[in-house]
Amino acid sequence: MSTAVFTTPQEAEDAFYEAFSRADLEAMMAVWSEDEEVICIHPGAPRVVGLAAVRDSWRQLFAGGTRLQITVSNEVISAGTLMAIHCVLEHIQVEGDNELHAPIVATNVFMRGALGWRMVAHHASPTPEIDVMGDSGGPLIVH
Amino acid sequence: MSTAVFTTPQEAEDAFYEAFSRADLEAMMAVWSEDEEVICIHPGAPRVVGLAAVRDSWRQLFAGGTRLQITVSNEVISAGTLMAIHCVLEHIQVEGDNELHAPIVATNVFMRGALGWRMVAHHASPTPEIDVMGDSGGPLIVH
Repeated sequence: MSTAVFTTPQEAEDAFYEAFSRADLEAMMAVWSEDEEVICIHPGAPRVVGLAAVRDSWRQLFAGGTRLQITVSNEVISAGTLMAIHCVLEHIQVEGDNELHAPIVATNVFMRGALGWRMVAHHASPTPEIDVMGDSGGPLIVH
Repeated sequence: MSTAVFTTPQEAEDAFYEAFSRADLEAMMAVWSEDEEVICIHPGAPRVVGLAAVRDSWRQLFAGGTRLQITVSNEVISAGTLMAIHCVLEHIQVEGDNELHAPIVATNVFMRGALGWRMVAHHASPTPEIDVMGDSGGPLIVH
């Protein structure tokens, strides 16, 4: 599908957000592992399992043609030699919309295989409008 | 904090859901890593980072005294020798409430340290009411 080789989880993550911003399906799928049972959870959407279904989910998302500006912040990393988890806040801005939105919180999991580091899971969900920058300590409403 | 040693990620996950069901704060915190920068995202709540803040989030959650019946299903696992990710659907039932709710999707990340397997991240978020059992393919509404 692609010859892109990511030598670190960060390279894979950077490529993920670049592909996401550009709505580039091939570049996006080049980030995902072809060896593992991959999982993608778009905010508020049902869980998607398997490479074909994950591809289809991004194809649908990109089909709208909306260009996004995405920046990530507040990254927390736990990394082993073969697996890494990056938890970030995504700040997503639709082109032409200047309203400030609450960030999305995303857990990105990467594994190292024969072809370098690839994404095996992306779990994204909305954060509440309140306390969006505090990043901790807000009242818990419900589990 | 505890002498519990979990020899597999599954043992740690079972202990997590058992502690959650029983609202047992000490048993819950025995599951979490003391070595890593832990992360907990309760559904719809701000991200919580660090062991003290994670403990406080569970303390608040359990303070309500609500007893829950929790079952998990549709587990998808990616595992290395030192790190594992388990993605599950959580079916949470409040005692005395017979209404059927949409499941929560949770990504649980475990790492193996000197004291066995411990949780380093729990990212839980609501699934839409529609297509809750299909677990794939539903229309994507928004990223």
